[in-house]
Amino acid sequence: MRLVSFITPSGTASYGTVAGSDVLDAGAVLGAQYADLRQVIAADAVPGLAGVGTALPLADVTLLPPVPTPEKILCVGLNYLSHIAETGRDRPRHPSIFTRYPSSLVGHGTPLVRPKVSKDFDYEGELAVIIGKAGRHIPAEAAFDHVAGYTCVNEGSIRDYQIHTTQFWPGKSFEASGSIGPWIVTADELEDITAQTLTTRVDGVVVQQAGLDDLAISIPEMIAYISSVLTLQPGDVIATGTPGGVGKFRKPQLYLAPGMQVEVEITGIGTLGNGVVDE
Amino acid sequence: MRLVSFITPSGTASYGTVAGSDVLDAGAVLGAQYADLRQVIAADAVPGLAGVGTALPLADVTLLPPVPTPEKILCVGLNYLSHIAETGRDRPRHPSIFTRYPSSLVGHGTPLVRPKVSKDFDYEGELAVIIGKAGRHIPAEAAFDHVAGYTCVNEGSIRDYQIHTTQFWPGKSFEASGSIGPWIVTADELEDITAQTLTTRVDGVVVQQAGLDDLAISIPEMIAYISSVLTLQPGDVIATGTPGGVGKFRKPQLYLAPGMQVEVEITGIGTLGNGVVDE
Repeated sequence: MRLVSFITPSGTASYGTVAGSDVLDAGAVLGAQYADLRQVIAADAVPGLAGVGTALPLADVTLLPPVPTPEKILCVGLNYLSHIAETGRDRPRHPSIFTRYPSSLVGHGTPLVRPKVSKDFDYEGELAVIIGKAGRHIPAEAAFDHVAGYTCVNEGSIRDYQIHTTQFWPGKSFEASGSIGPWIVTADELEDITAQTLTTRVDGVVVQQAGLDDLAISIPEMIAYISSVLTLQPGDVIATGTPGGVGKFRKPQLYLAPGMQVEVEITGIGTLGNGVVDE
Repeated sequence: MRLVSFITPSGTASYGTVAGSDVLDAGAVLGAQYADLRQVIAADAVPGLAGVGTALPLADVTLLPPVPTPEKILCVGLNYLSHIAETGRDRPRHPSIFTRYPSSLVGHGTPLVRPKVSKDFDYEGELAVIIGKAGRHIPAEAAFDHVAGYTCVNEGSIRDYQIHTTQFWPGKSFEASGSIGPWIVTADELEDITAQTLTTRVDGVVVQQAGLDDLAISIPEMIAYISSVLTLQPGDVIATGTPGGVGKFRKPQLYLAPGMQVEVEITGIGTLGNGVVDE
């Protein structure tokens, strides 16, 4: 299934599933029981969304981040082997983790905002893992039991703020500087997530492309490590890192500016697309 | 006023004010209007708590973090000139910022938990600023208008996880590894926060002591910088950094172990005290 959160044409926040070129408005039926998709996931009630709700044309709704307000958005830094090799670094032994707040991410189709304090606005195409089942001290062997599904992230970054100090947080936290979606593809639909390919395009030109088998720290290793620190909760998002080809390291540099269009596509999942506007 | 959140002897989560050796249970009166202290602050209704509620002996309630679930807990690293000196770094031009989740902080009197994956469990006594009024792009000159009050933080850190990579987040995020409280002292009670002194004690021995005038990045500068990135919200917590004397840099090192007692005292605010237990 493809799980979405959205604003209906009449302005109501809801959730449901994608069926062809429609969304089925399951939230209109189940909203009293589950206020949002995070609650559906937490109640292990995702299978019950199948076929539920009136069809609305996908083109008529505004897509939100699939889980609009996750408790945690955890981002893994430099994690693609090809990119690590080209930067001359060693393979990491631990995931490099920082956080974003929900206010930093918009849904598919909503413009990204270039802040007024910087023009160093970069894209980062990534796979995001959505946690389905809570857990602490999850062994790597059991990690996939805790995954609800997958989606695309543009982990948009303000590069000068990212390197003001050693800590990346300021550069990763600007409001509406990134995006997530368009939907969560449930894990049962992807036999092997590592067999998929991620592609980022700016104005139609491919700028990043890598297989998801190129991750230095695997998805089970990330889940095991993070859950040694704290409890992963349903709806939590883990952005798994970006491959080579970001704008900062291109010659010449390629930063996002108003009017540009960024797409992050992952085979088996879909395409996350956003324009760019100035704050 | 001194604002507290707590669990009553009958097990109800509530909030109110401190009056001598009692708390006044304002939440029992105003709970239908404001579910928690964060909502009171957001509604600019703090003055209305004065004298409201039945008195309960402070000794009979379990204190929670004063704002139990803030939207954001932002921590400024390496910000005391004395601590910068001990780590051998240069004076910063920008605040170094990472985040903690609410699950990492307990209230006054609740034990800190040393995790099973590490024994490198360190204390960090700090001043926390509690945001009262939302704002983006707050100029430094107006920053104090956005402050509701102040409290103490023990920004407990798992040092090996903190330096697994450049990003501090894992070492700062273990469940119940730090504490905050005992209460928020409203800003009107402290004529000059920078005139106060912070002292950390382990088993009664002073291990950190500094004036709050030793901050490299001032409170208004922090608020201006953070709000250039995103909107500060009522109840948000800014932990302003720790002075020299942390356990990692002592000779010999002094790490926290079960049975120890840590206190963070700030003049004009109070003393935050916690024991230590093993996970």
